[in-house]
Formats: sequence, structure tokens, C-alpha cells
Amino acid sequence: MNDGRVKELEKPALETGASAWVETHQRVRYAETDQMGVVYYANYLVWFEVGRVEYFRAQGFSYRQLEQEDDCLLPVVEARCRYRAPARYDDLIVIRSRIAARRGVTLHFEYEIARERDGQVLATGQTVHVFVDKNFEPREPPERVQHKLDAMIE
Amino acid sequence: MNDGRVKELEKPALETGASAWVETHQRVRYAETDQMGVVYYANYLVWFEVGRVEYFRAQGFSYRQLEQEDDCLLPVVEARCRYRAPARYDDLIVIRSRIAARRGVTLHFEYEIARERDGQVLATGQTVHVFVDKNFEPREPPERVQHKLDAMIE
Amino acid sequence: MNDGRVKELEKPALETGASAWVETHQRVRYAETDQMGVVYYANYLVWFEVGRVEYFRAQGFSYRQLEQEDDCLLPVVEARCRYRAPARYDDLIVIRSRIAARRGVTLHFEYEIARERDGQVLATGQTVHVFVDKNFEPREPPERVQHKLDAMIE
Amino acid sequence: MNDGRVKELEKPALETGASAWVETHQRVRYAETDQMGVVYYANYLVWFEVGRVEYFRAQGFSYRQLEQEDDCLLPVVEARCRYRAPARYDDLIVIRSRIAARRGVTLHFEYEIARERDGQVLATGQTVHVFVDKNFEPREPPERVQHKLDAMIE
Repeated sequence: MNDGRVKELEKPALETGASAWVETHQRVRYAETDQMGVVYYANYLVWFEVGRVEYFRAQGFSYRQLEQEDDCLLPVVEARCRYRAPARYDDLIVIRSRIAARRGVTLHFEYEIARERDGQVLATGQTVHVFVDKNFEPREPPERVQHKLDAMIE
Repeated sequence: MNDGRVKELEKPALETGASAWVETHQRVRYAETDQMGVVYYANYLVWFEVGRVEYFRAQGFSYRQLEQEDDCLLPVVEARCRYRAPARYDDLIVIRSRIAARRGVTLHFEYEIARERDGQVLATGQTVHVFVDKNFEPREPPERVQHKLDAMIE
Repeated sequence: MNDGRVKELEKPALETGASAWVETHQRVRYAETDQMGVVYYANYLVWFEVGRVEYFRAQGFSYRQLEQEDDCLLPVVEARCRYRAPARYDDLIVIRSRIAARRGVTLHFEYEIARERDGQVLATGQTVHVFVDKNFEPREPPERVQHKLDAMIE
Repeated sequence: MNDGRVKELEKPALETGASAWVETHQRVRYAETDQMGVVYYANYLVWFEVGRVEYFRAQGFSYRQLEQEDDCLLPVVEARCRYRAPARYDDLIVIRSRIAARRGVTLHFEYEIARERDGQVLATGQTVHVFVDKNFEPREPPERVQHKLDAMIE
């Protein structure tokens, strides 16, 4: 049975070595809802991506530049999300993102999505990424980027 | 460190008690790609949903009817996906879905997405659902449905 | 031939009776791009929706409230978009929205989407809506709303 | 006023020179609905894209190949959709697509989306495209493609 797996998501992915949270604010779009009257579940992964990009920007780091100038992509190799309370149309939400770990070419992010109005946590999640070149071959990120990543995590 | 957690996804979620796979075929839409030239990661969760609905249909069971006639919704409380190889525009894919477990009001699905051309597995994943009424209060599914679900799992 | 129709889109839909523009700012999401390296064309209609909702809010008017408290929905009966230059990942864009006309239960919006960096217009468009109740029967909007709409247009 | 423009959409874009319709069948996804309980309006443009690609395929023509081997993209420069009746979750729909006209580097498509169950037309629309190279400079499509396109239209 997968009891163990579900419980495991309750505790933070990493107690040590994680960076500080970066917050991004969004308003829920009509397009993001479904006929259940709440946000469709796949859209939380879109919000994770928004949070991830703003995380990099807050660290003085442009993901766009990484792709365009450094031939360095960061595809997702694993994603998970735990849904705790539904986000609804027009809600203001805050996406909290941070790097949980970096090991070589692998980068672990974690996220928390909360409703601004009352602070209710709506979802938590993690994504795992691998640095690759445009042929999807794993590669070390540029030194400049490695230094910034290491500084983020400390 | 979350080594353990990542490895855990390699093995099937459940060796026993799972139902047979149901296969659904789809073609990758242009809309589903992103500028990396591959399918955007959140769209795999959309494919899981497509597979899930066709799973029910293959068992003589309509999710639409469940919502409309039985006041019974099946929101996702947890989702995860492991991305193994990128799906690309115009690929024919097969989505394999099955129920991994049912315990009371909780239903566990698992999925495998493969490329038809060569059988390459592109992604594997799981979702966990809770039967609720339209006020999002947990409820037992209708007896008719419970019998069908039990028959699926055996 | 439809030469005439295409040219017609070049000129503003309405020279008179239109309200002032309301501006909304967004950043292009990775999820919104496609493998052409630009934003997928359907996503401009999502931006129109974002602009429309913020238009109402700027006028002291909540579309969410209209749906929830007034049993009044505003589905789209016609949409069009002219694409002038591609929006790209991470661009900051401004969505300009205004009501072009109201006639009974019909509301006409128009939009302009521009890149913030240099003011380049990326797209222009229009949507036409009908006020309906939850059974999709056309209905007059509540008086309170009619007054606000009339005040917007003048 | 734009009365004229709206009426214009009622009649077929082109009485002459249009190709035969190609039909594609799809089932409405949960992801495609919104909280109004119907399909979100931008998703009809995704269906147009699906129909367009299948149109090419039915003519022995691969849009994927055009992009990959011929350095020839076909971005949308204009799109419009008239919504006549709402598509709903789990509906089987048929997308009818055809080329309305080709003039040099410009290609006009038109679409009709109907519900399979009763033939009810749900939406009609048009898109206009320009053949470009990967730098988005207009270009003639390859001769091989031009011959096929001309044969389609007759």
C-alpha cells in the first residue's frame, strides 16, 4: 500500500540546506478553473513554474538568459503536488518557491501556494530538474550560475 | 536528502490489488508544446485525466454521470509525475491507466504514458482522489459505483 | 474573397461611444509558449479575459460577484484576434481593455496587447458577450450593473 | 457600430475556391471546461489547430515535416470564432476544417465544430496564416507543398 508515500509528503522535503522562500503574487484566471468550480489541478504546476522563474529573478538571475545565451535548459524530471484546499476564480494567491537542494546537474525546488486573504495553504509541491544542453544531454550549468546557485543555498 | 523518495518512484506503486490497465490513444497537440520543443510538463496531468475518464468508461462507468446524477465529485488531492523522455509535437501516445487502490472514500490511480512508434515510456505517475459531494465534503460513492470499483480491483 | 473583412480589422471597431482603456500588466509564462518559440495563439484570448476582469475591477465592479450573487454570466459569443508581432517568454506585456459598446444584453469589448519594453503592439482583438442567467437564457444585467456600465461608456 | 461585421460572419467566408472539409473527432476534456460548466472559449482555437493539422494529414501532408525539414512555419496572423452553443465536458465533437483560400504566402482556413450526438453546430471560425521561415520572414512554401495546396483547393 502507498500509505507511506502519502505521509512522506507531509514533512518538508529537506530540513537542511534549503534556500529562503521567494514570494510571487498572482490572481486566479477564469481560464484556470474547471467545471468543478475550482482551479484545475494541472494549473498548479504552471504556478510552480511562475514561482520558479521569479525565484531566479529575485536572485539576480534570468532563466531566459540561461536558455538563450548559455545553451542551458532546465527541464522537469519529476513533479508532485499535494492539494489541500481549492483555489477559486479571482482569488489572490501567493506562490512561495525555494531551492531545496542542488547536487551536480540536479536541482530540487519546493513550493507552497497560499490564499492571500486568510493565509490558507492551498497546495504544496516539489519539482526536480536536470541541467541539459539543447540536445537534452546533461551538462554542468555555467560557472557564473553555479556560484549564484551555491550562494542561494549557502 | 530526498534520494529515497525519488528512487521509490522507480518501482510500481502497488504490486497487488491493482486493476488491469486501460489504454487510451492521443496525438500530441501543438498547443501542448513549449519553446523547449517538447510537451510542457503540466500537460501530462491533463493526459492522466483523459486516461482516468476512459478507464471509467471502459468499465461501463461514466464520470460525467457520477457528477451530474450522483452529486459525487472526485477531485485530486495528490498528483505526481516522473518524466523519462520528452513527448513531442504530433507524436502518437498511449496513456495506460489503472486503479491502484481504493480505501473508503480514497481512490488511487496510476498511469504510464508511452510513445506508440517505439513503445518508449515517456512518463509514469500517480494521482490520489477523494469522493466528495458538491460542497466538497467527503462521501461514500453510490453503491452501484462501489460495486463496479470493487469489481475493477477484484 | 475576404480581403474586405481582413482590412476591416485594421480600423478601431468603434470611433464613438467607447469607454477609456484600462491597463493590466502580465509577464509571459513558459507554459504560454509553443515550439515555435512564441506564445501560442489561443493564449491571447486568455489575456483578453484577464484584461476584461481587471477592466470591471477598475470600474469598482466584480465579475465574480456578478456570477455568484446576481445569477448573471457573461459568456463570449464571438472573439477575434489580429496577431501583429509575437509575444515571447518572459516579456512584460500590457493588456489594454475597454467596452466598445453595450446594446441591451450584448456587450462589446476591445483589446490591445503591447510589449512594455518598447511599446510594440503585439495583438488587437474584440470579444462580444451576452448577459445570461445560469441556464444560459439572455437576461438584463442587474440595474446596479447597468448603471455602472452606462457610466463607463458615458 | 459593428452590426455589419457580426452579420458578415454568418455567411461562409468564401463561396468559391474552397477545398473539401476534413473531419476530426475529439472528446471534450475536463481540463477544457471552466466554472461556467462549459468549454472555455480559448480552447476552440486549440481545436481549430487540431483540425488544421489533421486537414494537412488527410491530404498526405505533414505539418511537422514542414517545420522540421522545410524550415517553413505557419503562424496565425488572424483568428476569429463565433460561439453558437456551448460544448460540454465529455461531449464527442467533430471539427470540420478546410482551406478557404491561398494567395501567395497567405493561407485562409475555416472551421466548423459540431456535437456528434445531434449534429448541433457549436462554433464556426476562421484563421489566417502566413508561411514564414524560422526568423519569421515571409517565404513561399516549398514547391512540393504548393502543388499539394493547389490540388487541395483545386
